[in-house]
Amino acid sequence: MDVSRVQAVLREEGFDGWLLYSFGRSNPVALQVLGLAHLHLTRRLAYFLPQEGEPTLLCHAIEASLLPPLPGKRRTYHTWQGFLEGLAQVLEGHGRIALEYVPGGRIPYLSRVDGGTLDLLRGMGLEVASSWPLLLLFQTWDEEKLKAHRRAASGLVQAKDAGLAFLRENPKATEREVQARMAEVLGRLGLVFDHPPMVAFGKNSANPHHTPGEKGLEAGEVVLLDLWAKEPDGVYADLTWMAGLGVGEAAHRAFQAVREARDQAIAFVARAYREGRHPRGYEVDRVARGVLEGMGYGPYIRHRTGHNLGEEVHGFGPHLDDLETQDFRPLVPGLAFTVEPGVYLEGFGVRTEVNVYLHPEGPEVTTPLQEAITPL
Amino acid sequence: MDVSRVQAVLREEGFDGWLLYSFGRSNPVALQVLGLAHLHLTRRLAYFLPQEGEPTLLCHAIEASLLPPLPGKRRTYHTWQGFLEGLAQVLEGHGRIALEYVPGGRIPYLSRVDGGTLDLLRGMGLEVASSWPLLLLFQTWDEEKLKAHRRAASGLVQAKDAGLAFLRENPKATEREVQARMAEVLGRLGLVFDHPPMVAFGKNSANPHHTPGEKGLEAGEVVLLDLWAKEPDGVYADLTWMAGLGVGEAAHRAFQAVREARDQAIAFVARAYREGRHPRGYEVDRVARGVLEGMGYGPYIRHRTGHNLGEEVHGFGPHLDDLETQDFRPLVPGLAFTVEPGVYLEGFGVRTEVNVYLHPEGPEVTTPLQEAITPL
Repeated sequence: MDVSRVQAVLREEGFDGWLLYSFGRSNPVALQVLGLAHLHLTRRLAYFLPQEGEPTLLCHAIEASLLPPLPGKRRTYHTWQGFLEGLAQVLEGHGRIALEYVPGGRIPYLSRVDGGTLDLLRGMGLEVASSWPLLLLFQTWDEEKLKAHRRAASGLVQAKDAGLAFLRENPKATEREVQARMAEVLGRLGLVFDHPPMVAFGKNSANPHHTPGEKGLEAGEVVLLDLWAKEPDGVYADLTWMAGLGVGEAAHRAFQAVREARDQAIAFVARAYREGRHPRGYEVDRVARGVLEGMGYGPYIRHRTGHNLGEEVHGFGPHLDDLETQDFRPLVPGLAFTVEPGVYLEGFGVRTEVNVYLHPEGPEVTTPLQEAITPL
Repeated sequence: MDVSRVQAVLREEGFDGWLLYSFGRSNPVALQVLGLAHLHLTRRLAYFLPQEGEPTLLCHAIEASLLPPLPGKRRTYHTWQGFLEGLAQVLEGHGRIALEYVPGGRIPYLSRVDGGTLDLLRGMGLEVASSWPLLLLFQTWDEEKLKAHRRAASGLVQAKDAGLAFLRENPKATEREVQARMAEVLGRLGLVFDHPPMVAFGKNSANPHHTPGEKGLEAGEVVLLDLWAKEPDGVYADLTWMAGLGVGEAAHRAFQAVREARDQAIAFVARAYREGRHPRGYEVDRVARGVLEGMGYGPYIRHRTGHNLGEEVHGFGPHLDDLETQDFRPLVPGLAFTVEPGVYLEGFGVRTEVNVYLHPEGPEVTTPLQEAITPL
């Protein structure tokens, strides 16, 4: 935690400070920022970082020994009265503070402080603002993270190739066997993942939430592979690849549509950067969906265009989303995200997915751009 | 979910309805009430149960197939606009609704709806009240749960006895070996637990958060055993037992204090019931702490007097707590909780813990009442 960088943003945004508050694990965003996400915490914890001067951690005495050192002072409480007194003293003299709060809950990922605590803070005379501009500091990658991402992306490509080779050699292999083969390659490369790769054959690909099973591939069917992994201390890469065994025209046409949506979304970001502007997450989603709708695939869209990448595969940063939520956050340099338009028809689904990293001069696609369904 | 019972409480409390809202797993209380706690949900879900008429579930189309049937209608949304429209229609015409909200976050376990969503609801002209009176319906036990609790309690006593017998036969056994022996007995009885039993020898007992290690028992030291378990579909029992190898007068005196605190807390609940009153959780904590403070042990109290018992060892119901939070909820018939005063001195800690179930006529202690430290 680089306090002076946070304080610079506090000054820019006109915030008197940032209150990171969690009851147990209720605010995973705050715990990640503070490096406490791995701890088993069950009590109220507050960390106040003022625009000037030292931060203060307010934690329960029984949990104090669990917590690593954090910049600034530490103050413990035993009782609920002690918590309230500590909070009042820490916040005294401040007017406008940032919090994991989003008006209307519009970005629910970041709206984490409960309504009762919000009322408590307002009752203390504080004005509460959303902490999203501060959180961007923790969602952007440095050079080292970008390198770790590149290595993870390269591992995904190897695992995908091994999965397809396995399927060519074993045409009767089940979804689960292809999944196991890819997971084995990822494991051998030292990559970790929260869930093993997704493999869907034929009509199973029409369900974005499919769980690989005992189905084998039949002639005319598509294969949807979706893999995500990272180095143990790294950040994720996330790749989708389509193959097929003599698939028909409908699938090829649908793939051309998602490819076009993907490429226009990326081109939109590049153009905005050239014009000196950081596009908002929801704008990019609109571009991709506009392409799909224009080609008649509107009714077959099931999910947003992309998600932020971080230490979790679905990071806390800006998503390409005007569907599930309206993500109004700007796509600033240092962020990484997936671009993964998909359409899910009656008998099959297709998706293409690449990863994008934003340099100050514009987007870089860090994974292969699939141009057509790979024949098996 | 018995809709008519909930509606009876809605009428009693003057609520127009109950809005159970969760973003993914943000509101574990609502998910437990709806029987969805085991599902991997990542989107916004709302279930509105009006004072009269049918409830409505509002869920994302992509998650609809994951959800079991719930009483009432089901309405799906695809987009964030669809969610807002659905919510507005479902809530239309209602004025005062219950929510997992607690003013000031005083009971943080139940204050689960985020501040942004609270603002959204108030912006729709709704008055928001705390759902705790409704939640009590889901925290009280029927006869079947009480029987399952009794079987779990009996298993804990067997495991505790086996642990002490093992230690008598193997005086050099480590904390971890005693823990393993007790866990084995619990497993053989078909009981499950979130964490294996706690075993603390000597000075380790002074740390309520100790993790059993390689320490062996020495002359003059106390043994603190804390075990909790349940049948796979049952509710928890939770027991602490103290033993010792020729322990000194200080430990015996401290034990007499926690025993007295325990007995006076239980007597307070029994007296309130005889007077036709349901005491509040925080009142019982005050009684127990008053006893300890009166005997000079005030500085050595580290935790509340007890917690609610349910499908989780720390249930969502009223706790005996005026320390960490001020639990103002009434201890109504059908609830069960632990009474477990403890004091943690420089070189050792002592605690006694029993379970209490509330019948309409008063409390029943369902586990053995330890009267003195068991000699080894």
